[in-house]
Amino acid sequence: MTTHAPPLFIALEGGDGSGKSTQARLLREWLEARGRAVVLTREPGGTDLGRTLRREVLHGEDLDPRTEALLYAADRAHHVHTLVRPALARGAVVVTDRYIDSSVAYQGAGRRLGREEIRGLSMWATGGLLPDLTVVLDLDAATAAARRSGEPDRLEREPSAFHEEVRAGFLDLAAAEPGRYAVVDASLPPQDVHRAVVARLSPLLGADR
Amino acid sequence: MTTHAPPLFIALEGGDGSGKSTQARLLREWLEARGRAVVLTREPGGTDLGRTLRREVLHGEDLDPRTEALLYAADRAHHVHTLVRPALARGAVVVTDRYIDSSVAYQGAGRRLGREEIRGLSMWATGGLLPDLTVVLDLDAATAAARRSGEPDRLEREPSAFHEEVRAGFLDLAAAEPGRYAVVDASLPPQDVHRAVVARLSPLLGADR
Repeated sequence: MTTHAPPLFIALEGGDGSGKSTQARLLREWLEARGRAVVLTREPGGTDLGRTLRREVLHGEDLDPRTEALLYAADRAHHVHTLVRPALARGAVVVTDRYIDSSVAYQGAGRRLGREEIRGLSMWATGGLLPDLTVVLDLDAATAAARRSGEPDRLEREPSAFHEEVRAGFLDLAAAEPGRYAVVDASLPPQDVHRAVVARLSPLLGADR
Repeated sequence: MTTHAPPLFIALEGGDGSGKSTQARLLREWLEARGRAVVLTREPGGTDLGRTLRREVLHGEDLDPRTEALLYAADRAHHVHTLVRPALARGAVVVTDRYIDSSVAYQGAGRRLGREEIRGLSMWATGGLLPDLTVVLDLDAATAAARRSGEPDRLEREPSAFHEEVRAGFLDLAAAEPGRYAVVDASLPPQDVHRAVVARLSPLLGADR
């Protein structure tokens, strides 16, 4: 690791259908073209244990909200401990598709478990590891739903009022800490969204970028 | 449910090898002989999801202590929500082999994650459901180890200093709330342990017992 290549932790957040995976891929290509080692990962399910938990939480039997929140927190603890922190220690850029804010927005705001409790749970789970930059891909619930395809998972099946609560949850988090967030209009074409993301990211990449 | 048969929630706690399953079985027979409906269960692993989590936490890859604690908490939330509370609502006696105190003793004391944090996590997971009576089957670590058979799981493989921390964790909890605890010398023959348990339990069973 040199002073020109600091480790960097980036989270992509937003509802299903907001284009997180497309942006993650574009971001990886852009970073790799600049010589950075990139680890692309996601929650839930970035590890072997995480894939088991992802199956239970998104496709298993119905779960009460606290069980669901604790499974997401366990996935996150394991993900950070075994994958994210080691990659950052090697000087990589870690880009995760969803992180703490998804729990705050879905379980805290959407499920009404309390945003502070859910945030506290994740902060305990991760030993307080926050992203250097969180990109919120903002999209209204109707447009997001129209973009989704395939069999909907448990969260995708929730009514649109739930998804509007989730969206408001993300925007509230971004408004409270503008220095650590970029809110991007995800209804724009993918390349326009990407340009907005890298404009915000470039200053964090080190002096020579 | 009549006034003579209040629901009752009993937890059996203690190290592996302290005789919890034997005592759970004797307790069920004794309660059923008195006309009570009994649900015998355990943590982790009292539900379908719980069995998946039990496998991961006791026999899967190595986990950091926070991941482990969150998986136990998720198992507990689901167990209480889907099995324990419904059984109590039917007026049953629920006897669980391990509950919150195992997490406080193993993760809080043994793993040194902080007893208060671990207790708080479980209280949040369960919506604050505490047993009417917790029986601590107390046994020194060496005797407990000598009693165990079969392939040891992840916790059983811990050194004896860990198990002594766990034992002290259970005893501290009992000392802090003597009204909700019975500490029984688990080195006694099983029938003697059983007699000590029912002596303590009888007054909780209702006026006509």
